[in-house]
Amino acid sequence: MVVVVSFSSDSEPIKRGRPRSEEVERAILKAAAALLEERGFRAFTIGEVALRAKVGKPSIYRRWPSKGTLALDAFLSEYLQLLSPVNTGTLEGDLSASLTAWVQAVEGTPMGRSLVGLIAEAQSDRDLAMSWRERFVTTARSQHRLTIERAIARGEIPSGSDVDVLMDLLYGPAYHRLLNGHLPFSEASVHEVVAVVVAGAKSGDAV
Amino acid sequence: MVVVVSFSSDSEPIKRGRPRSEEVERAILKAAAALLEERGFRAFTIGEVALRAKVGKPSIYRRWPSKGTLALDAFLSEYLQLLSPVNTGTLEGDLSASLTAWVQAVEGTPMGRSLVGLIAEAQSDRDLAMSWRERFVTTARSQHRLTIERAIARGEIPSGSDVDVLMDLLYGPAYHRLLNGHLPFSEASVHEVVAVVVAGAKSGDAV
Repeated sequence: MVVVVSFSSDSEPIKRGRPRSEEVERAILKAAAALLEERGFRAFTIGEVALRAKVGKPSIYRRWPSKGTLALDAFLSEYLQLLSPVNTGTLEGDLSASLTAWVQAVEGTPMGRSLVGLIAEAQSDRDLAMSWRERFVTTARSQHRLTIERAIARGEIPSGSDVDVLMDLLYGPAYHRLLNGHLPFSEASVHEVVAVVVAGAKSGDAV
Repeated sequence: MVVVVSFSSDSEPIKRGRPRSEEVERAILKAAAALLEERGFRAFTIGEVALRAKVGKPSIYRRWPSKGTLALDAFLSEYLQLLSPVNTGTLEGDLSASLTAWVQAVEGTPMGRSLVGLIAEAQSDRDLAMSWRERFVTTARSQHRLTIERAIARGEIPSGSDVDVLMDLLYGPAYHRLLNGHLPFSEASVHEVVAVVVAGAKSGDAV
């Protein structure tokens, strides 16, 4: 953690040696993300995050009421930008890019482990489940919703297409394999899933 | 628990008042299933199962090495038969019936709660994850695989269709909504998902 001490000549009192709040926050999130990746959700504790971030536990509890909410913020700060959609000009190109980015993040980074840990915890922690839906699921879905709405605007698929069902057909198989573990989600699966979803969307079956 | 005491005239010694092994097993599974439904996976303990089944804890540990494996068997004994596929004569009819049965079991019985509890636990318990894949996921999938293989045999969809991808396109969206909780899985969603999967299968996009 880098501690920046400011000396100011104006009237606001500045305490020497105390890092600014946003720096403390960044250090805590960075330590939490690292521990989450190293140990997984179950084994990670607020005490260890405090030690690694070189802050007191109260500095963490002031900002995050529980281990689950801290883990969620650490997860979002690391991974949400990896999943941003791109605009390739066709529905097939956009869905392919989105699903490929998901597979690469889940397999090529520690995101997969953190993702399953948070989804598992959300099944028995109501507050975490609500934050998970609002801050991850809904945020990610509203970005990707645009992809399908652009295809409707271009006339590629019928207006009135059920955007939610199409998104669940795209991501559902990938999450299903990740959480049940029956098969890995390969590049070939990405291609087949996208082909079926695009064909279904164009035919108007999901209206 | 019904205790049946047999009196036999042959040479095998029979201890009065001790229920037969399969009755003990049934009583344990029934108690475990009831507790799993009432409390959910996290709050359920081997001690409580023993109390409710009127057996000692060693009788349970002799048969099931962990809470996870007992919960899995209790789950299978209650629900696996609810998910058996039917033969309607068309791919659309079969997939519709299968997905509708899943939705009804998840929403109309305590199965949904037990299902999410077991999937959540399997994310951090390697032995349970392996048993879950072998005894639930693979068993259920091999039953439903027949549905798609019959459609290939009837010439309804191309031979060489990727049965795994088609099954994940069918069940993935339902599990996705159940575990992420962003939307309920309605009858209308069943209809749209089945329509897209059938159209995709017929077009040969999943080959």
